[in-house]
Amino acid sequence: MRLQEALDGRWAHVRQAARDRLAGGRFVAVPGETIGQARARVTRLLRELPADLCAAGFPAEYGGAGDAGAAVVAVEMLGFLDLSLMIKAGVQWGLFGGAVAALGTRRHHDSFLKDIVSGDLLGCFAMTETGHGSDVHRLQTVCEYDPDTESFDLHTPYEAARKDYIGNAAQDGRLAVVFAQLVTGGRGHGVHAFLVPIRGADGEPLPGVTIGDDGHKAGLLGVDNGRLSFDHVRVHRDMLLDRYGGVALDGTYSSPIDDDARRFFTMLGTLVRGRVAVGGAASSATKEALTIAVRYGETRRQFTAPGRDREVVLNDYLAHQRKLTIALATTYAFTFAQDELVATLHEVQSAAEPVDEHRQRELESRAAALKAAQTWHATRTIQTCREACGGAGYLAANRLPGLKADTDVFTTFEGDNTVLLQLVAKGLLTGYRDSFGSLDGWGRTAFVAEQVREMVLERTAARSLIHRLIDAAPGGGDERAFTDRGWQLAMLEDRERHVLDGVIRRLRKNSATRERPFDVFNDVQDHALKAATAHTDRVVLEGFVAGIERSADPAAHALLSRVCDLYALSRIEADKGWFLEHERLTPARAKALTGIVNGLLKELRPQMTTLVDAFGIPDEWLASAILREEPRRQEEMASGS
Amino acid sequence: MRLQEALDGRWAHVRQAARDRLAGGRFVAVPGETIGQARARVTRLLRELPADLCAAGFPAEYGGAGDAGAAVVAVEMLGFLDLSLMIKAGVQWGLFGGAVAALGTRRHHDSFLKDIVSGDLLGCFAMTETGHGSDVHRLQTVCEYDPDTESFDLHTPYEAARKDYIGNAAQDGRLAVVFAQLVTGGRGHGVHAFLVPIRGADGEPLPGVTIGDDGHKAGLLGVDNGRLSFDHVRVHRDMLLDRYGGVALDGTYSSPIDDDARRFFTMLGTLVRGRVAVGGAASSATKEALTIAVRYGETRRQFTAPGRDREVVLNDYLAHQRKLTIALATTYAFTFAQDELVATLHEVQSAAEPVDEHRQRELESRAAALKAAQTWHATRTIQTCREACGGAGYLAANRLPGLKADTDVFTTFEGDNTVLLQLVAKGLLTGYRDSFGSLDGWGRTAFVAEQVREMVLERTAARSLIHRLIDAAPGGGDERAFTDRGWQLAMLEDRERHVLDGVIRRLRKNSATRERPFDVFNDVQDHALKAATAHTDRVVLEGFVAGIERSADPAAHALLSRVCDLYALSRIEADKGWFLEHERLTPARAKALTGIVNGLLKELRPQMTTLVDAFGIPDEWLASAILREEPRRQEEMASGS
Repeated sequence: MRLQEALDGRWAHVRQAARDRLAGGRFVAVPGETIGQARARVTRLLRELPADLCAAGFPAEYGGAGDAGAAVVAVEMLGFLDLSLMIKAGVQWGLFGGAVAALGTRRHHDSFLKDIVSGDLLGCFAMTETGHGSDVHRLQTVCEYDPDTESFDLHTPYEAARKDYIGNAAQDGRLAVVFAQLVTGGRGHGVHAFLVPIRGADGEPLPGVTIGDDGHKAGLLGVDNGRLSFDHVRVHRDMLLDRYGGVALDGTYSSPIDDDARRFFTMLGTLVRGRVAVGGAASSATKEALTIAVRYGETRRQFTAPGRDREVVLNDYLAHQRKLTIALATTYAFTFAQDELVATLHEVQSAAEPVDEHRQRELESRAAALKAAQTWHATRTIQTCREACGGAGYLAANRLPGLKADTDVFTTFEGDNTVLLQLVAKGLLTGYRDSFGSLDGWGRTAFVAEQVREMVLERTAARSLIHRLIDAAPGGGDERAFTDRGWQLAMLEDRERHVLDGVIRRLRKNSATRERPFDVFNDVQDHALKAATAHTDRVVLEGFVAGIERSADPAAHALLSRVCDLYALSRIEADKGWFLEHERLTPARAKALTGIVNGLLKELRPQMTTLVDAFGIPDEWLASAILREEPRRQEEMASGS
Repeated sequence: MRLQEALDGRWAHVRQAARDRLAGGRFVAVPGETIGQARARVTRLLRELPADLCAAGFPAEYGGAGDAGAAVVAVEMLGFLDLSLMIKAGVQWGLFGGAVAALGTRRHHDSFLKDIVSGDLLGCFAMTETGHGSDVHRLQTVCEYDPDTESFDLHTPYEAARKDYIGNAAQDGRLAVVFAQLVTGGRGHGVHAFLVPIRGADGEPLPGVTIGDDGHKAGLLGVDNGRLSFDHVRVHRDMLLDRYGGVALDGTYSSPIDDDARRFFTMLGTLVRGRVAVGGAASSATKEALTIAVRYGETRRQFTAPGRDREVVLNDYLAHQRKLTIALATTYAFTFAQDELVATLHEVQSAAEPVDEHRQRELESRAAALKAAQTWHATRTIQTCREACGGAGYLAANRLPGLKADTDVFTTFEGDNTVLLQLVAKGLLTGYRDSFGSLDGWGRTAFVAEQVREMVLERTAARSLIHRLIDAAPGGGDERAFTDRGWQLAMLEDRERHVLDGVIRRLRKNSATRERPFDVFNDVQDHALKAATAHTDRVVLEGFVAGIERSADPAAHALLSRVCDLYALSRIEADKGWFLEHERLTPARAKALTGIVNGLLKELRPQMTTLVDAFGIPDEWLASAILREEPRRQEEMASGS
């Protein structure tokens, strides 16, 4: 069965190259290191990674492969090996190098990209400040142009404005892309990015630069996160990354985009790749945890049962299947949705001409939705896998503690998930129009017109296929089988539309009745977040459906189809309160749904290991002691008793 | 308002003594230590703890205070300081010392308890094996009596039978309570406990004893978990802890309890204190995390809003309240339920005569239910608090990573939560009768009679109060207000009864129709677990209601009453699918419920910090850098802008 081929998707060749070229245990995380050991090892390994694979996003002339999609997929693959190394590579090539490439112009590229790609010049992406992480529009670092010296003055006015949590800052970075409020001629032009040397060749901070260390973290010990403060540091005029805004010698500001906020969000939009990569790497860690828990659950036995000679293997228990198989199905769904997202990213970022704004906004919204969904799924699922392995799951040698601790921050970095879902909701409400303002209480959303939602609800890939499936069978909900794909799609689409209608209705009403403008939005915040998750569920299911359609192998197609049933129906089951409340399910049908899900779990029981094997994670990458030890122990016990 | 007094409950004096006697930062967890540093510090501090407080459970003649309840509460208080220290104390005085006290007889007490209480003799509780953690009935270590040498031969037949995850084993323990299958005259008598010296005065393992180290774990680095194997180790006859079964010189076995399984579960029952303490300590960690997140959320600002001069504080966002205030209300509920559980434990274990079996079984069931509920709540809530603090929540200096990593194993040790909930379900099904068999596919449950459930559904503390509340208002569900306590209680009681009825009906049907006996139970496993959680919700709500009744201060009483509304209604909201499916809520009423919960959140918004202050955690114990730093930074920003 060609299941792995279906999962490997469009960049299968990159995945296979990673399996081959990063084979063995050399790049695999090492449990129990001190922070010093972890940082030293990861810094060393970063330079040993094949740049043409891991930095594939850069143009070939600078050492890359000019393949944006491949770059994201390579980072996803590093997620199987060592999440510190993945983040370190992501900081160097994705955030730092990516910002130089996307926000800089030819002279920056020619001066720096080659050394960035080769790893000879390590750098930082210094956006987040201690006081502002989510609302980056309001960063407090100031960079003011002085026409007399023809240079900028970069300054941190108070502690809350220092750059914080910056990867590569505490130990390795020599150059930083620093985001700061650009001021010239006494006037602010919003946030811009500057290339700022922070360390000399001796590794010491340069004059005026103060570097702090974020110290011990929950995980990612191999990443040297730190803090940067600037005391009136002089920055050469050439070091403004000026693709979206430049300052002439006399201090005159010019930009192809007039509005400050709109310009900044356009700049941010070019950096979407990091968010896409984090979602994908979160799913890599999830796949690794599931592979460990499912394989362990296939050998580990506990409790006797009548009619069984030996104790029962954990995977035979319904409660275990409820934990692991549903998480597996969800992970499959995300894999296909992520593959589609990477393809969209690749298409947008490889286009000769800038793509239209609608397409760019759609990419950002999908990236936000899938990043939030995949990272929360990782946090929950790795936790579940840890628990499913009992005490063994708590030992560092069995890998799960590292996966959990390292991915934990994924839910709040590269965009806090709750904030990201708000952005998704805002996009849904405004139909991607007029979405460049800050999250200013959503006051403007009250003016949203009905018709813009048509655009939002546009179906994803394989639009005609999904259209056909939904319209395939006549009749209402109760006449269609639970496993009718069209019914599943229609349920999720209908929920999204209905929730969105409700949010709009309430916002309109609130605008007229609430005394405090803040309450207009805040009163419906939970409802708006629900719109975003309902939207995400629908997009993910459509991605899964389209992915199955691409699978040519009949056996793989059939199995994927059952997994897709489990994904769709478990999502509906998880929110059956909503479907009942809105009379989309009758009580009798809602009760029956639980039986259908349990039936699917039973049907998929023999396929649990097949499903994790198809993730294609080399044994040496798994590096979990129990996978070697438990089968031997069970044999000893069986023969010894 | 005397809110803290209500929360401190019956053992308020113990809580206050802990605050006074363990004041300052001396016993507080230290982030970023190596495993060696952590172990050395915790071992040193263990000996510095006041034994009369922390080992209060032992008789005064051995240095304790003869107060079982105080012992549990003291361990809960250690949970605020350092979870490694709490576990280390729990292993020494709760598990190891507790087993000597409960399973040994006078000669064991006189020989060992004084040194155990003082900390001069450190020891292990060696029950769990690599191959059997949940099903301890089937431990594989063997201890066979040899009448010729008048001693036992203790042996580990294969690796799966080695003792594993044993606290105090890797470094400190000199003596171990080892659980093993007792064999005499060629016949097995089930699992018994033996006192076995494992290390000499020089710290080296004794002959025949192999000691391994579990190494790096996700957390609890200060606890030296290890492995013990025995190669035909000779154990003196006197070292059998023989309260429940003895071996005469000639090898004749005698016991006050005939049935092996029943005897073993009686022995286990005496050890329930550890499970109660773990649930309580999990809630301590939860309270600490909530205190940090709520106080941070009260000063931290992010995003502007129309009509607001400054950026909005996080606690003002509905989504933040949804995360934190509901978790707070649940934590309040558990506090009162735990206080009641400790009182029951105290009463049962302090009784001059053995209490009746029903009371003992009820204690075990409640302990299992509340341990599972509180530890899962801790895992979820600490995660939520970490995310609510963003990047700052990921830094070790802000405490949350340690709380998360240390408590992570609580959901699977001292009884795996899923297995515990099965025990609760089994107890519900059999009405605590006939519950001594192993979890053998639950074959026997099919014979359960209807009437036994009457006993199970007996109301908890303040039975007459709850009876009165439920019967207070006439009319069906739809006529009663959401905040009518009687309606809330009736909803949870009705759900428990109905789910249980369903499980029994399905088990009966399955017994008649399923070909494979294993499927009889396994098919309804999820349904049985739901019965257990429905039961837990009901017991917890009743405990909360009874606790409020005890509060004499009108202001505290009124606030607690609103918090209780939030707890009850958020539980109903979380499971509204069930209530709709079973037509206990109409769709209109279910929709209204969300508005009611949001209204409660808004009403309680000004009380968020009051609610965490009442946990009474000294500032020096919180040891979270952001609580000091964030207010200062916000001031700087406000004055600097």
